[in-house]
Amino acid sequence: MRIKVIVPVSTDMWNKMIKEQYEKYKDPDTEIDVINIKKGPESITSLYDDAWAALFTIKEAEKAEEEGYDGVIIYCMLDPALQAVKQALTIPAVGIAETSLHLAHQLGNRLAMIGPGPIGIDTNKNYATFGDEGRYGLPAPVSLREGAELEDQVLDIFKKMDEVKKGLLKAAKKAIEEDGADVILLDCGALVEPTEYLQKNLDVPVVSNSIPALKTLEMMIKLGLSQSKKAFPKPEKKKRLM
Amino acid sequence: MRIKVIVPVSTDMWNKMIKEQYEKYKDPDTEIDVINIKKGPESITSLYDDAWAALFTIKEAEKAEEEGYDGVIIYCMLDPALQAVKQALTIPAVGIAETSLHLAHQLGNRLAMIGPGPIGIDTNKNYATFGDEGRYGLPAPVSLREGAELEDQVLDIFKKMDEVKKGLLKAAKKAIEEDGADVILLDCGALVEPTEYLQKNLDVPVVSNSIPALKTLEMMIKLGLSQSKKAFPKPEKKKRLM
Amino acid sequence: MRIKVIVPVSTDMWNKMIKEQYEKYKDPDTEIDVINIKKGPESITSLYDDAWAALFTIKEAEKAEEEGYDGVIIYCMLDPALQAVKQALTIPAVGIAETSLHLAHQLGNRLAMIGPGPIGIDTNKNYATFGDEGRYGLPAPVSLREGAELEDQVLDIFKKMDEVKKGLLKAAKKAIEEDGADVILLDCGALVEPTEYLQKNLDVPVVSNSIPALKTLEMMIKLGLSQSKKAFPKPEKKKRLM
Amino acid sequence: MRIKVIVPVSTDMWNKMIKEQYEKYKDPDTEIDVINIKKGPESITSLYDDAWAALFTIKEAEKAEEEGYDGVIIYCMLDPALQAVKQALTIPAVGIAETSLHLAHQLGNRLAMIGPGPIGIDTNKNYATFGDEGRYGLPAPVSLREGAELEDQVLDIFKKMDEVKKGLLKAAKKAIEEDGADVILLDCGALVEPTEYLQKNLDVPVVSNSIPALKTLEMMIKLGLSQSKKAFPKPEKKKRLM
Amino acid sequence: MRIKVIVPVSTDMWNKMIKEQYEKYKDPDTEIDVINIKKGPESITSLYDDAWAALFTIKEAEKAEEEGYDGVIIYCMLDPALQAVKQALTIPAVGIAETSLHLAHQLGNRLAMIGPGPIGIDTNKNYATFGDEGRYGLPAPVSLREGAELEDQVLDIFKKMDEVKKGLLKAAKKAIEEDGADVILLDCGALVEPTEYLQKNLDVPVVSNSIPALKTLEMMIKLGLSQSKKAFPKPEKKKRLM
Amino acid sequence: MRIKVIVPVSTDMWNKMIKEQYEKYKDPDTEIDVINIKKGPESITSLYDDAWAALFTIKEAEKAEEEGYDGVIIYCMLDPALQAVKQALTIPAVGIAETSLHLAHQLGNRLAMIGPGPIGIDTNKNYATFGDEGRYGLPAPVSLREGAELEDQVLDIFKKMDEVKKGLLKAAKKAIEEDGADVILLDCGALVEPTEYLQKNLDVPVVSNSIPALKTLEMMIKLGLSQSKKAFPKPEKKKRLM
Repeated sequence: MRIKVIVPVSTDMWNKMIKEQYEKYKDPDTEIDVINIKKGPESITSLYDDAWAALFTIKEAEKAEEEGYDGVIIYCMLDPALQAVKQALTIPAVGIAETSLHLAHQLGNRLAMIGPGPIGIDTNKNYATFGDEGRYGLPAPVSLREGAELEDQVLDIFKKMDEVKKGLLKAAKKAIEEDGADVILLDCGALVEPTEYLQKNLDVPVVSNSIPALKTLEMMIKLGLSQSKKAFPKPEKKKRLM
Repeated sequence: MRIKVIVPVSTDMWNKMIKEQYEKYKDPDTEIDVINIKKGPESITSLYDDAWAALFTIKEAEKAEEEGYDGVIIYCMLDPALQAVKQALTIPAVGIAETSLHLAHQLGNRLAMIGPGPIGIDTNKNYATFGDEGRYGLPAPVSLREGAELEDQVLDIFKKMDEVKKGLLKAAKKAIEEDGADVILLDCGALVEPTEYLQKNLDVPVVSNSIPALKTLEMMIKLGLSQSKKAFPKPEKKKRLM
Repeated sequence: MRIKVIVPVSTDMWNKMIKEQYEKYKDPDTEIDVINIKKGPESITSLYDDAWAALFTIKEAEKAEEEGYDGVIIYCMLDPALQAVKQALTIPAVGIAETSLHLAHQLGNRLAMIGPGPIGIDTNKNYATFGDEGRYGLPAPVSLREGAELEDQVLDIFKKMDEVKKGLLKAAKKAIEEDGADVILLDCGALVEPTEYLQKNLDVPVVSNSIPALKTLEMMIKLGLSQSKKAFPKPEKKKRLM
Repeated sequence: MRIKVIVPVSTDMWNKMIKEQYEKYKDPDTEIDVINIKKGPESITSLYDDAWAALFTIKEAEKAEEEGYDGVIIYCMLDPALQAVKQALTIPAVGIAETSLHLAHQLGNRLAMIGPGPIGIDTNKNYATFGDEGRYGLPAPVSLREGAELEDQVLDIFKKMDEVKKGLLKAAKKAIEEDGADVILLDCGALVEPTEYLQKNLDVPVVSNSIPALKTLEMMIKLGLSQSKKAFPKPEKKKRLM
Repeated sequence: MRIKVIVPVSTDMWNKMIKEQYEKYKDPDTEIDVINIKKGPESITSLYDDAWAALFTIKEAEKAEEEGYDGVIIYCMLDPALQAVKQALTIPAVGIAETSLHLAHQLGNRLAMIGPGPIGIDTNKNYATFGDEGRYGLPAPVSLREGAELEDQVLDIFKKMDEVKKGLLKAAKKAIEEDGADVILLDCGALVEPTEYLQKNLDVPVVSNSIPALKTLEMMIKLGLSQSKKAFPKPEKKKRLM
Repeated sequence: MRIKVIVPVSTDMWNKMIKEQYEKYKDPDTEIDVINIKKGPESITSLYDDAWAALFTIKEAEKAEEEGYDGVIIYCMLDPALQAVKQALTIPAVGIAETSLHLAHQLGNRLAMIGPGPIGIDTNKNYATFGDEGRYGLPAPVSLREGAELEDQVLDIFKKMDEVKKGLLKAAKKAIEEDGADVILLDCGALVEPTEYLQKNLDVPVVSNSIPALKTLEMMIKLGLSQSKKAFPKPEKKKRLM
């Protein structure tokens, strides 16, 4: 089973970390390759970045299918271009947000999402946009909070990891006490270390936002399943200029 | 990793089949035990049966935790007593309906559930009861259809497997063509063979309703996750007579 | 007109109180019998208790129909086994929650439910579980508050009635002022005296949670109505072990 | 207990029929007076008629409170001016639609409303207007059908009672078979005789649309309850010209 | 293009102000006439007033169509009798609430409505009545706040304009900071000057509640569009007494 | 007032038609420029095309703001990149779908969208994806139908205009009769001529899908309004490679 992980940002700074944790959780017979897009934004912290990254993400996903991979993971909590990729590909494609949201909703009833920076920006697209609608047909989070005030909330995470972890823990505690949250999901794929830190320091489930994509995709492949081509039909051939 | 599967009916006729398919899909280091409840209904085809089976299912689940299992699967598409078991246990508990519904909604947008007998009966509790509400916070199926008219739709499945498979295929085709369904889930845990049959004969995903429970539970255990005790608090100690 | 009230707990401590208040509000020609289940939990303060009580409640309800009663009331704000009982019986069956919730929603627009102990526990099943869904197709309460911190919030009510009443009044005032509630319903069938106390001390409607079951059931019987057997079909005959 | 029934049409042709049936179902100590408005439309078959009747209905309701009545019933399935009357009055005010809809939803899960004439007209205001929204916070009917094609669907009911009854029965059967309805409510207060006719000829509950108003109002009065003045605040005094 | 503006209150004190601002924003070829109803309440601050004004508003609207106007605007944020008028008329009829709500939802995701007096009263009918339902199929406002405590919140606006403007600004700031609102709509058609004042002093859009009616109606007329007679069918001819 | 219309396809075949109709409906003082993107797909008939076109559309929109335009229209019924453009720009940006959907919902209650080709493809993203959710917080259409079976449903429209018009009319009639639609919107910006054809041949409103964008944008500009920067915050400056 060969899986390609596409990190939809124009930096390779996250690839190693992702590779390492996926190696730890993968099935024995799974091979993992992690690549990033060569163009597009260096981080995704807005709908604008999300739209910027779409075309380059699609291209990498199409390449993965040509190269014979059995499945594709888009590694960003905005799931950029996920619907388009599901249309383009025959092999299964998953995003880390869709899969971790589904796992979180099986563990608790009231979800809080905690992000590294101003939540208004990077979750704008997906949550609580119109009244109480959630994403992927799931209930909207009962709580959206930010844990830190980094200048660029993604690129600075490693430099200020201690501050980030403490800020996220504080925000998660507020979500639990003030908003009644009973399950926590961190809203950025770079927050692997903080997830473990929160898990140790909170007594509600803190759901990994990266591993569910891997295990869900392995489950799909083993069961011979892929996204419905009736729901995500193959795009017609036509002239498309790049 | 040791997992106990509880079949909430007072017959052991399904245990072997469940054991066999779980052995096929489990992780190498997972041990699977399958047991049924000793009292309660011999099949579950109504809310009445579901309520009848609740107490005996709870008791088996509590015993599993005492015996040191790492997780529990309730094997019935009505997920009998699942919320109560989630309260009683510290180890993770999943039902085959909750987990397979979550997988199905990641593969398509419009779900059809096809059952062996009159759908009005055994899905009454869960779907489309009030307007458009679904189960587990998920969208309601766009289509509920029955594939056969067995006298007891569960106990007779093996005897009339051919008729059942053809009936389910016909119903699924109608769901796709007339109701616009783009992903199929069979609504009874006994329909393992028909799932494979439909998968071969349809070009939309036909989701296993049994394996997702296993793989989701393994994922939870590996990630050190269990149901939120804030959402499913431990019941107080008190006098309870049986 | 003969009505049987089933108190789904294994203590008879509430029967007299229930009988007395029902005698006060019943129609002249109505006969009321109040019994409790002989097994099951001594109080219902969790989904776990609710599932524990189900089978014994069903059995008493079936017996009531055999004895020739014209209708059945399940007397607990979790309405345990109500859907199963509606399936099993031909005579009308009502729960005190369903009927009082319907009356409350005819008197105001924003409902607060106030319980004697930690609301998380005994209302878990019913309210606010997934986003904004309510129970019985009705809007979810805008406010869920607890009025006291009793050790066992139900069994201790009589001993600490003064504390309970004051606690509930305080919680109800907060629900009105802070959550904008405009109608109040107490979330436990044992809170008859506090209901009257609150009614005297608040200027929004405080709805009895016990009398609506009686008057709604009498209305159904007079109109020759019972739960739809299409919605709640009679369970098939089969082997069920107890 | 004195109750005033206001028929919001400028004809007294229904008063006697209403009085007779209310006498049959009322509590022994209840006194019933039935009056109609002197101005306004002679029947209500559109939102236009509903708005026309509003002011005259308010005036009669205010008079009833001055005359010392204990409660008011507005007798029309559009519940004209009900919210305004709930604001104006301190005594409880109910409409026949609100109360019968609440009873119907306690008897089944999927409601059909069957009207005497083109449903588009007289239910326009209330049901299925935007997507799946229902009325009074209740689920929208799953089925809206018309049973007859009378010239004026209300005024001609008596003249063509046989045709009306047969038409309604046929429409109700279609609602049950084709739309999956499991409880029936006729959508016009004049359809007392057809309600009984359908009840005899169908095996799902056919809910009276007139008696629930009476019995619900009696229940409110006995319990000392009235509409929340926080939800329906008393209008300020000001100059209003008529 | 000739448009008639109907102010549904029995005072002409607003006509001049409305005429002036409509002259400023209208298309070159549009003629505007502004009239008020001669009977009914002198201001609309409750559902009671709204129902009071309905009949007189209908009559003026019907007259406008007879006089050859091309469209009608009902100028009050409760849109009194709007559905009935849409039924009665063939020419397009719009209300200032419906049109400004639609514009506001195109400019932001989380709407706050700020009113001059107690919001409970004049928005009761429309917003947040049952759970999270909004008006006109639009999402409910995330915030409802009052900006002043006038004795009659409408008639006193001119006298205390400074106090009103400051109160509204303060309330709007709270809505933005505490409720997360990102677009503001004032909830009374008399608040033209305060709208401009808030627009200067806030950095989220403050939507005019009067001009959208004019521009939307002009758009409809230019496109040859009017309300669907299938959705708003012409009322039957019948005896209606006034 | 200067408005730039961006046609998000890599062909200029539609520019002239769009320019002509906008000239006909614009305000006297409005200047209209119509351009298409130079790269990207030559038509948009899938989510895949929509994602492909995003980056090139963003770039043109940013350029328009730099060139001093007062507002931007994205001319495609999928509104590609609209949320991202609203973030990037300070001047108002509208899409033809958002604006025409809002107008349609002010004219009727039950919307049908009729497209030139297989609806599953080009409306996949927006409508009826999960249960009853609509787009932009508006109710989902009650009816989605296709009017023709063109090879490329957009590029072939001119060649087969007669067939297209007849197909759309037939589909719209079915939507009205079978699905109860009461207002029609064509689901492709190229269908200008068919809109007029249907308007002449149907007696429910057939809403232009292109003009509302123009008139709504003019209204915003005149009122000094633009998308809320709180809802659509300016993206941070960062490295983004193209």
